Amino acid sequence: MRLSELEQTSGVPAATIKYYLREGLLHPGRAVSARLAEYDESHVRRLRLLRVLREVGDVPVSRLQLLVRAVEDERPVQALLGVTADALAPAPPPDDGDRGPSRELAVRVLAGLGWVLRPDTPDLENLAATLESYERLNGRPLAPEVITEYGEVADRLARHEIAALDPTAGRAELLTQMVVGQVLFGHLLTVLRRLAEEHHSGERFGRPEEQTP
Amino acid sequence: MRLSELEQTSGVPAATIKYYLREGLLHPGRAVSARLAEYDESHVRRLRLLRVLREVGDVPVSRLQLLVRAVEDERPVQALLGVTADALAPAPPPDDGDRGPSRELAVRVLAGLGWVLRPDTPDLENLAATLESYERLNGRPLAPEVITEYGEVADRLARHEIAALDPTAGRAELLTQMVVGQVLFGHLLTVLRRLAEEHHSGERFGRPEEQTP
Repeated sequence: MRLSELEQTSGVPAATIKYYLREGLLHPGRAVSARLAEYDESHVRRLRLLRVLREVGDVPVSRLQLLVRAVEDERPVQALLGVTADALAPAPPPDDGDRGPSRELAVRVLAGLGWVLRPDTPDLENLAATLESYERLNGRPLAPEVITEYGEVADRLARHEIAALDPTAGRAELLTQMVVGQVLFGHLLTVLRRLAEEHHSGERFGRPEEQTP
Repeated sequence: MRLSELEQTSGVPAATIKYYLREGLLHPGRAVSARLAEYDESHVRRLRLLRVLREVGDVPVSRLQLLVRAVEDERPVQALLGVTADALAPAPPPDDGDRGPSRELAVRVLAGLGWVLRPDTPDLENLAATLESYERLNGRPLAPEVITEYGEVADRLARHEIAALDPTAGRAELLTQMVVGQVLFGHLLTVLRRLAEEHHSGERFGRPEEQTP
């Protein structure tokens, strides 16, 4: 297919497609003349992945490069998983120097959950930062058993999500599945939780009249 | 206390405190001379709330105004809850015109969960947008029973979080509690879920050697 058809099929504007080609995020089409190239299904799939990473995962272009490189190299699947996790995890907020106790609490709870993690996983620091915010705002640390309760919920969901991955599908497809799992199911849970809070606060505190069913 | 002590106690820089005073987000201190004002615990509490809204909740200044106004006006508690939910919910991405089926799916699943929601709640559209992204990327809609499963998890967590609110504590304190509940427990769940995925993908696909416990 030509560029205009690729634009239509993928839903990505031509200017963005050209940008991805220049940046090496999209492989070149097959040249049919000096000014025309022919694109195929592999371009549509890569553009869909880039689109969801940008729009849904909110992954900056610099990290897209890492992901695309990880798809194309030969490292084992667990390395691809690690690169994906790092690309999707936000950078931890800077430590003002007060995070030590929260970090210890995080490490203790994670050990209790029995999770085996990379020692340099950025989300350990993200967890510590969240616990530190809680303590700063409430004047006391969050109870370990509450963190564990959320951890157990997370454990159940993650177990299902990882079990649903199909590693025989090829690296690009596996990356797509991982992004869908991490980002979209994450959004799903976040938005459903806010809706559930709206419902339960209505149940507890009442609703404006026009809203009662 | 003076401005410098307020800065130290709250952890908010003096320049930001002055900005909040100018914008009406922080009530003025008691004037002790033409150039000096005396601040008290109520200023510290408001600054802590503003800090967590900005840093943790990532709430833009325009929405902070809404929240502060909702704390100060006399509307019933459920209105305060609604304003908070709207201030914390992201604006839904624009609809390209394909969102109809996803919106119907969202409405059907939410009805099945038995939640009573405001008809104009922005998170209905956020949910539809997430389901639309899933379908665009996977070529088929997400199964309603999977959405329901996530909804039931969200329901259990939200029930606890709303039950833990103390509406006798005053509006500002209630708003703080709601923000902690919605934002910090949301972060907690998100980061624990990513960590759980790291653990379960290691269990399933193996880990680099140095990482084995």
